[in-house]
Amino acid sequence: MASAEVLCVGTELLLGNITNGNARWLAEALAGLGIPHFRQGVVGDNSERLIAAVQEAAGRCRLLITTGGLGPTPDDLTTAAIAAAFGAPLMEHPEVWDDIQAKVAARGRPLSDSLRRQALLPEGAAVLPNPTGTAPGMIWTPDPAGLPFPVQPGFTLLTFPGVPSELHAMWQQTAVPWLRQEGLAAGVFASRLLRFWGIGESTLAEQVHDLLALENPTVAPYAGTGEVKLRITACAATASEAEALLAPVEAELRQRTSTLCYGADSDSLASVVLALLRSRGETLAVAESCTGGGIGAALAAVPGASEAFLGGVIAYANRVKLDLLAVPAASLEGDGAVSDPVAIAMAEGVRRITGATWAIAVSGIAGPGGGSVDKPVGLVHIAVAGPDGSSSEGVRFGASRGRGWIQALTAGEALNRLRLRLELPGDRASASVGA
Amino acid sequence: MASAEVLCVGTELLLGNITNGNARWLAEALAGLGIPHFRQGVVGDNSERLIAAVQEAAGRCRLLITTGGLGPTPDDLTTAAIAAAFGAPLMEHPEVWDDIQAKVAARGRPLSDSLRRQALLPEGAAVLPNPTGTAPGMIWTPDPAGLPFPVQPGFTLLTFPGVPSELHAMWQQTAVPWLRQEGLAAGVFASRLLRFWGIGESTLAEQVHDLLALENPTVAPYAGTGEVKLRITACAATASEAEALLAPVEAELRQRTSTLCYGADSDSLASVVLALLRSRGETLAVAESCTGGGIGAALAAVPGASEAFLGGVIAYANRVKLDLLAVPAASLEGDGAVSDPVAIAMAEGVRRITGATWAIAVSGIAGPGGGSVDKPVGLVHIAVAGPDGSSSEGVRFGASRGRGWIQALTAGEALNRLRLRLELPGDRASASVGA
Repeated sequence: MASAEVLCVGTELLLGNITNGNARWLAEALAGLGIPHFRQGVVGDNSERLIAAVQEAAGRCRLLITTGGLGPTPDDLTTAAIAAAFGAPLMEHPEVWDDIQAKVAARGRPLSDSLRRQALLPEGAAVLPNPTGTAPGMIWTPDPAGLPFPVQPGFTLLTFPGVPSELHAMWQQTAVPWLRQEGLAAGVFASRLLRFWGIGESTLAEQVHDLLALENPTVAPYAGTGEVKLRITACAATASEAEALLAPVEAELRQRTSTLCYGADSDSLASVVLALLRSRGETLAVAESCTGGGIGAALAAVPGASEAFLGGVIAYANRVKLDLLAVPAASLEGDGAVSDPVAIAMAEGVRRITGATWAIAVSGIAGPGGGSVDKPVGLVHIAVAGPDGSSSEGVRFGASRGRGWIQALTAGEALNRLRLRLELPGDRASASVGA
Repeated sequence: MASAEVLCVGTELLLGNITNGNARWLAEALAGLGIPHFRQGVVGDNSERLIAAVQEAAGRCRLLITTGGLGPTPDDLTTAAIAAAFGAPLMEHPEVWDDIQAKVAARGRPLSDSLRRQALLPEGAAVLPNPTGTAPGMIWTPDPAGLPFPVQPGFTLLTFPGVPSELHAMWQQTAVPWLRQEGLAAGVFASRLLRFWGIGESTLAEQVHDLLALENPTVAPYAGTGEVKLRITACAATASEAEALLAPVEAELRQRTSTLCYGADSDSLASVVLALLRSRGETLAVAESCTGGGIGAALAAVPGASEAFLGGVIAYANRVKLDLLAVPAASLEGDGAVSDPVAIAMAEGVRRITGATWAIAVSGIAGPGGGSVDKPVGLVHIAVAGPDGSSSEGVRFGASRGRGWIQALTAGEALNRLRLRLELPGDRASASVGA
């Protein structure tokens, strides 16, 4: 079975300026394809060390996947270093240079000579197209004849830029089909990522501990921001056989976890809520205090959101709550901005002024300042208003993980509350699902 | 100067279950001590590959810092593999076993035999105490005599657990004093990250290409989402000498790039805009269509945003633009929602209803659907309204990088337009800064 290594290139990684998210992303992607992956490395923007690392990897693995160093600046050395590692000349690919020029023109940016370096690849390498950025990668099996170091049979390099969105697109569109076509993905893997809200990783793992011991399909838990994921991965000779292995385990997991499982694969809480609303021909508005627009942004991130999402009010200041949402001044003073009455008045206010079928509202203390004993940092009141009335509840997310965490969990929790209202009419929906 | 490598041990890293935050943390810690760090590696919980990686590193570096694999379970192999790599026997340290027993008793946990493995270290190794957990690390300079592979003079291993809090405590309490005492911390690094909006990485690199060739301080460019960064890093004997080396280069870069440089280090466009507003005693509201709340969320992400950010309206649907912002129906029909007149009406509308000093408004086509020849996906009109009047401009971000990219660049560009209005009163601010 073909083994892979990942080599990430960038002095910023060695200085600790950024976390190596690409290594993790590729590790997960390789695991999903059933390609064993035994080693990762990081080197800086240094030709000599990059050449040494590539030559060493050539003696160990069948596939070397690199990220970073494909850009136009002088410290982008990956392509030239790889060519030098195997003694190959660089050749310009005119179609790549045309593509770079077209992309730069479309963005109204000046064309700089340095961009032209990105059209160079080692002789014999195939272009690994970059659909979004200007720097393409390569797929290259260097000729091992006459090299003064050991090279694994069939050793092949795949290079990617360090920009995560470009890496992801290139991997999905070109690398994965190529790996399958070459037979390097050992069998066909089917995988399903089930997404959960309102349960912790260890609790979920305990609920399904017997399934975590399965061998095919495997079930593995991952923690995200507020959400937990279970990845089911089945391997078989054909896609339909892999799906057939996977399906009963998915069904069992969904049955055991009920509404804690909000979706699968690329679903988000926002996309699930929007799909539910669209199927009912209903609309949604938001009234946001401590999230400042984060719930709306999560909804607007979903293509086609405009079919159900109308918009709303960012009521960050109390005056906006009063003036635009008609939250009663007595309630703001008596109950305080972070309270069920104010959250409900915000939700009902935005529902009234937008004419939306449903509204969600949040008001809380994101910190780091502003907390008190009664109303600590991390306390958020979340209200849902709809045709069948309004409900609100205080949720405590805790202060320890900081402002961004509280805001992200607030947005997720608010969307999840609406999801439960839409999926489970009646009072069951008011059950706490605090994360 | 002593060079270091970091080797992180754990199959969970190779499966992509977790991000390698320890590698980043150690990289930053090494940079802060002035210890050059040229390579990072990751291997799984596999004795053979771990031994190979340690032996290879011994030939390259003076310091090898490992994380992970010190625990009591059968897949914790690091200590035994390191001993085997240098042919040294393991010896029990009774004082470590006493410490483990005391810690386990204090937590009311049962004492398991497997914990005793953690008291074993290679003969000749010193204990690197773990003040919080049960697994200590080691500081060990193996005897290179008779080894069948090259070993750098003075090659020394430092091992740490994978639990971040334990790694951090052990590093600060024991490793840092040891590194200083041994004279391995050769100097002090100072670094500054300058942040730019409205210029591409390659254009910026050309503008400052002579500075990119400096050796101390070094200057290196990095691309982000819409923004570009330049990191300046200086090394000297003391922190103030390093700062003194850095300062003139920073000044030169700021002078050359003028208002393209919006901030430094942990600044964001939102934090810079909020600081400008606070210093002027002014306030801000937003009216967002295609970003759905993303501008507000970026502002609310900044602690203390409420001093200047009032909130605003998410006018995703045209009805919300009409009803809440009083955008004229004739303009929506005649000019279209994505137009300067509508963007200006949105900005002026939200400024009026919130009483804010300043307002920014965006209306655009985030795609993937909804584009036309005249108004393609990626076209966004961005307006700023303030005490000195209103301005608006269409910006084309292009469709190729997708919806999320267009939304993120729209938010950044809108905040940057306001920043330029606040920094540069008068018509200079209306100059295009399209990203």
